[in-house]
Amino acid sequence: MIARLPRNQRSDARDNRDRILDAARAVFATDGLDVPVREIARRAEVGPATLYRHFPTKEMLAAEAFAAQALAWRSALDEGLADPDPWRGFRLAVERLCELQARDRGFTAAVKSTFPRAMDFAAMRTSSLTRAAALIRRAKDTGRLRPDVVLEDLILMIMANDGIRASTPAARIAASRRFAALMIRACEAPPGSAPPPVPLPTPAVSVPGKTPDRTRATRGR
Amino acid sequence: MIARLPRNQRSDARDNRDRILDAARAVFATDGLDVPVREIARRAEVGPATLYRHFPTKEMLAAEAFAAQALAWRSALDEGLADPDPWRGFRLAVERLCELQARDRGFTAAVKSTFPRAMDFAAMRTSSLTRAAALIRRAKDTGRLRPDVVLEDLILMIMANDGIRASTPAARIAASRRFAALMIRACEAPPGSAPPPVPLPTPAVSVPGKTPDRTRATRGR
Repeated sequence: MIARLPRNQRSDARDNRDRILDAARAVFATDGLDVPVREIARRAEVGPATLYRHFPTKEMLAAEAFAAQALAWRSALDEGLADPDPWRGFRLAVERLCELQARDRGFTAAVKSTFPRAMDFAAMRTSSLTRAAALIRRAKDTGRLRPDVVLEDLILMIMANDGIRASTPAARIAASRRFAALMIRACEAPPGSAPPPVPLPTPAVSVPGKTPDRTRATRGR
Repeated sequence: MIARLPRNQRSDARDNRDRILDAARAVFATDGLDVPVREIARRAEVGPATLYRHFPTKEMLAAEAFAAQALAWRSALDEGLADPDPWRGFRLAVERLCELQARDRGFTAAVKSTFPRAMDFAAMRTSSLTRAAALIRRAKDTGRLRPDVVLEDLILMIMANDGIRASTPAARIAASRRFAALMIRACEAPPGSAPPPVPLPTPAVSVPGKTPDRTRATRGR
């Protein structure tokens, strides 16, 4: 054992913390959130006790590991909301969310999972849904977004985008870009002179903490 | 050990074969194709030797387990092609493929995976792609399918549909139905009088055994 000065101890602690967060991000991204904490400690080359001292629960570790991504998702929604053209704001947000998700699958798993004890995550999800709902409402008011598109469709899109696989990260991002463009087309209202579109089936994905907004959706065919 | 008559032996063999196929379908559907053959034998309550006697390779087992689904997929495409209205045929095929996939995720894993030694699977995939390409070509000729939709988009749709999760099988199927309707909307050409649509980014998913059909796709924005 090497005797350390307090200053080095603090520096070591910070290094350990960063190493744990890096390992957690890498492991969550490739293997999802079911990976045991012990495995993350092993990859970070720290003992389990050290990991638990920094992050007493896996939820706290995940929330901290994905803090930057959570901010990026929120920014994508905020920038869409801030756009003076609501339909362009909607499109930009859809494109950025699909790309962010293509870049980091672990974060999507974190957002999708319930994580009941991670208050940060729950709060983040609720505020994201509120923002997404506002994004939809604003775009609908312009007449450019089809009136039967609902919040559930954005969630459906995010889940579906998560299913896209490709041989390289770059191909994965390019495929998600095309998928986002297809989804935007699906959401765009036909020009005023066009005949009314075929109604969509009833939305089927439930929004966490919200009764499905069936009033705005057209009945299934 | 119980002494058996030849007739009972044949009957036992048939029972074992059916039990193995049932177990394989169940295990592949929930856990994908990476499950060891030994685990399938355990679930089927037969010895590994019995399984290998019926199905010398996992590829042969998978091909046989999913023979009915392969037929259903091919039928979905054939019925789409047989429809006198090519655009309706395209829509029906998309709806049925999404629903078939929602009902059985294991089969999708089988279709997506390479399985180089399973000739049946490779032949099935090639003939499916040929049919899907014809479905797209016919629908484009009517002017109802956007000219920049390519075979890669159907593959992208199948992968994306595979990412949809729901709490029950019925909810999963309903969500896929809505997703199929959104994708059909994305593929539908605007009416003749409408302004030209915003071009899609270049297709990014590669079709197995085929050079991407970039000539028909519009350049990325």
